[in-house]
Amino acid sequence: MRVIRREECLRRLGHGGVGRIAVTVGALPAIFPVNYALMDDDVVFRTTPGTKLSLASRSAVVAFEVDEVDPVYHEGWSVMVVGRTEEITEPADLVRAERLPLARWARTGGPESFVRIRSELITGRELVQVPVSLTRI
Amino acid sequence: MRVIRREECLRRLGHGGVGRIAVTVGALPAIFPVNYALMDDDVVFRTTPGTKLSLASRSAVVAFEVDEVDPVYHEGWSVMVVGRTEEITEPADLVRAERLPLARWARTGGPESFVRIRSELITGRELVQVPVSLTRI
Repeated sequence: MRVIRREECLRRLGHGGVGRIAVTVGALPAIFPVNYALMDDDVVFRTTPGTKLSLASRSAVVAFEVDEVDPVYHEGWSVMVVGRTEEITEPADLVRAERLPLARWARTGGPESFVRIRSELITGRELVQVPVSLTRI
Repeated sequence: MRVIRREECLRRLGHGGVGRIAVTVGALPAIFPVNYALMDDDVVFRTTPGTKLSLASRSAVVAFEVDEVDPVYHEGWSVMVVGRTEEITEPADLVRAERLPLARWARTGGPESFVRIRSELITGRELVQVPVSLTRI
């Protein structure tokens, strides 16, 4: 297992796409996949007001993770961001967020918010595994 | 968004492979990708003693999630298990766990434990999104 440096973590996060966010819902842990993009090195995603994810990511400390793990060789990498969330309300930031390649969750076209995770802690590691066929030697 | 019933959740979990587990490390949330398999409808994965994941998944309440999300259309599904973890120590269960298709994390062949997540709460949902190109209409 190799540690990935912050700059390289940010580069890999920069590709955007699908990541997973860990929050607390009713005192229990929960994980949601989200479509995300980076803005000023912070993770940004959309939420629909009233949903579990929206309520749970309101000024909370959350973990966000992206990875690429080979399903056959079980090798790959994982980058994690831990930080406080905040809804984007600043008009200039909202304009920028609207331009991010973030798919909407709702087909209805109803109201959606943008949430930013302040990238206070960024860690990454390369994963190396032994193929299953070798584990029984 | 469509709710997936428990039986269908278990069927999708049954494919095994890579999932993500949310735990608490030093009072902060953390997410780790793990290779997993089902045993008696419980999620089972390997850990290496002394690692963060091993320490954090010792008799803790965790969330475990698998998903398949299309990176282009952002449609797919997500299944989550929330439950208490426990190390597998019963000899008969250890024999069965050894037969699961679980890759080892360490190449060294050092000691590893099997952790079971009691599937106390299983939820699933289909995700439907609008393609990015339509979000600016």
